Amino acid sequence: MIAAKAYAAQNPAAPLTPWNFERREVGPHDVQFDILYCGVCHSDLHQVRNDWFPGIFPMVPGHEIVGRVVKVGDHVKKFKVGDLAGTGCLVDSCRTCDNCREGLEQYCSNGYVLTYNSLDKYGDGSPTYGGYSNTIVVKEDFVVHISDKLPLAATAPLLCAGITTYSPLKHWKVGKGHKLAVLGLGGLGHMAVKFGVALGAEVTILSTSPKKEADAKKLGAHHFVLTTDAAQVKKARGSFDFILDTVSAEHDFALYLSLLKTNGTHICVGVPPTPNRIPAFSLIDGRKSLAGSAIGGLPETQEMLDFCAAHNIVSDIELINIKDIQTAFERMEKGDVRYRFVIDMATL
Amino acid sequence: MIAAKAYAAQNPAAPLTPWNFERREVGPHDVQFDILYCGVCHSDLHQVRNDWFPGIFPMVPGHEIVGRVVKVGDHVKKFKVGDLAGTGCLVDSCRTCDNCREGLEQYCSNGYVLTYNSLDKYGDGSPTYGGYSNTIVVKEDFVVHISDKLPLAATAPLLCAGITTYSPLKHWKVGKGHKLAVLGLGGLGHMAVKFGVALGAEVTILSTSPKKEADAKKLGAHHFVLTTDAAQVKKARGSFDFILDTVSAEHDFALYLSLLKTNGTHICVGVPPTPNRIPAFSLIDGRKSLAGSAIGGLPETQEMLDFCAAHNIVSDIELINIKDIQTAFERMEKGDVRYRFVIDMATL
Repeated sequence: MIAAKAYAAQNPAAPLTPWNFERREVGPHDVQFDILYCGVCHSDLHQVRNDWFPGIFPMVPGHEIVGRVVKVGDHVKKFKVGDLAGTGCLVDSCRTCDNCREGLEQYCSNGYVLTYNSLDKYGDGSPTYGGYSNTIVVKEDFVVHISDKLPLAATAPLLCAGITTYSPLKHWKVGKGHKLAVLGLGGLGHMAVKFGVALGAEVTILSTSPKKEADAKKLGAHHFVLTTDAAQVKKARGSFDFILDTVSAEHDFALYLSLLKTNGTHICVGVPPTPNRIPAFSLIDGRKSLAGSAIGGLPETQEMLDFCAAHNIVSDIELINIKDIQTAFERMEKGDVRYRFVIDMATL
Repeated sequence: MIAAKAYAAQNPAAPLTPWNFERREVGPHDVQFDILYCGVCHSDLHQVRNDWFPGIFPMVPGHEIVGRVVKVGDHVKKFKVGDLAGTGCLVDSCRTCDNCREGLEQYCSNGYVLTYNSLDKYGDGSPTYGGYSNTIVVKEDFVVHISDKLPLAATAPLLCAGITTYSPLKHWKVGKGHKLAVLGLGGLGHMAVKFGVALGAEVTILSTSPKKEADAKKLGAHHFVLTTDAAQVKKARGSFDFILDTVSAEHDFALYLSLLKTNGTHICVGVPPTPNRIPAFSLIDGRKSLAGSAIGGLPETQEMLDFCAAHNIVSDIELINIKDIQTAFERMEKGDVRYRFVIDMATL
């Protein structure tokens, strides 16, 4: 076994504190990489607090993980010691179902294994521990290559915030000639703007906060609509081909659906705490769709990282000392981050 | 003006009773046809009762109208006296917006004119009166040809129940190789089964009533799933490409969405009285879509009627005397109709 250090929550009420544990030995198909940076996703906070489902404790969060390979198994072909490497939300899946065979491991019919707060059901059944840690062992097929052309710390959030927004834009073929609205300008939203612009769409930020307008433009958005202003909303009605909705608080879907053109699609990547309320007429009038999308599969995650290297896209980040993780959680809850905290793992 | 007879509701609390009124004179672009049969749609009942919005009274319901042309305007090209003719839910639209120009008058950006309970905003602004009547005057562009190869009374419901189910199946290209589930076996549902089968899909009826199984098979459905039976639901999980949802009562969307394959689409054509409750994970897990669709445009309505003539498709109907319309409403509310009441207008 490999001795590892981490910050962990011992129970849902506890703050994250230092914890020593063991990773499995490097098997023939495994890659071990030392973690240099790990992004802080809002879902880390939801999971350590049991907001969604009862978690597995102690819990080491973190699924936006980048680092450098220190050991590879005998059968590993894609990685060698010294390579940059990354792992996102998934560390395994059945790899035999139709979805897995199509590279859609995020929709594995037999159940994927999450990077943390999950049981390694295709391995020895033990809990998985995430990236708020100094090192990790992952099956080669669930490790991706990271370009050395990009500032490494700022690539970490691509592994969740990046792929979660890139995947639906590609699936629905958003690009030149399309009007794309991005709802919510946080960790996910700011990546959606960058991808939307890079793919050639005309991008509008929809926000309830007038303060976001300057930021939206700085990120490359072409337009800004303040959704608390009835005149701006009226003007925007029926104007978007797509809305990419990154909001995980309750919100008024009827309002946003009214901004779509005929045949428009509202794509949800955020998970509000209660069921979304959708008046039937909001979809029927204009043949509109409300869709959902989850992260992305492994082939598409690599494609996204290569796209980022080619287009010089990274996340806007604030690098933190791991000792400040609780403060980062508190600030993230208040939306006080532009746009992603990333832990410098040298501080562990 | 043209003297006309009808059954009308004088107010939302009143039963339908005989009423005399006037239709406009036949203008240069108008077609007048004597109504031979008119289907009874559930929305007729919703509208005379003000269930959706305050209606215009006296109200003459009916938007599944077929008959024979008795007069045409000087500029009318497509119809001559003696032709069979039909009119559905729409009698006008702006005809200049993008949607109208694409033949999607049902999504007219400037507002369509409904066949009844609407104001003729592109004409003289007077109320429109529907098909529970002996004659009607409609602009040529909103009149469709009816084949004389089909039993005429049974074609009437095609003008609403038919096009409402045909249009989404065509828009989402449902056909060979697809597994289609039809939710709700009423006026719309039974047409959806016929169209789904004719388009080559493998059709399953989803129902809460075991009594519907024999009917479903008789209509041509390949399978039947009793959604109150946990074992049948479990077996059906993740199996459909499309669900065509004709239910206008509240229902459990999370349950039905779980029956879709990855990338599956749940299409709503029914309008429940309260907003549909959609848990975010039901769409995100499996990249699913919830969509809506309204009737169909004029070109597609004609296409549907031609398709029906070619495939010998009509509605299953129960022909009634107009004096029995209140009884028909009561039976329709209880779901006691297979599958559409049609008024024999000779009884008026």
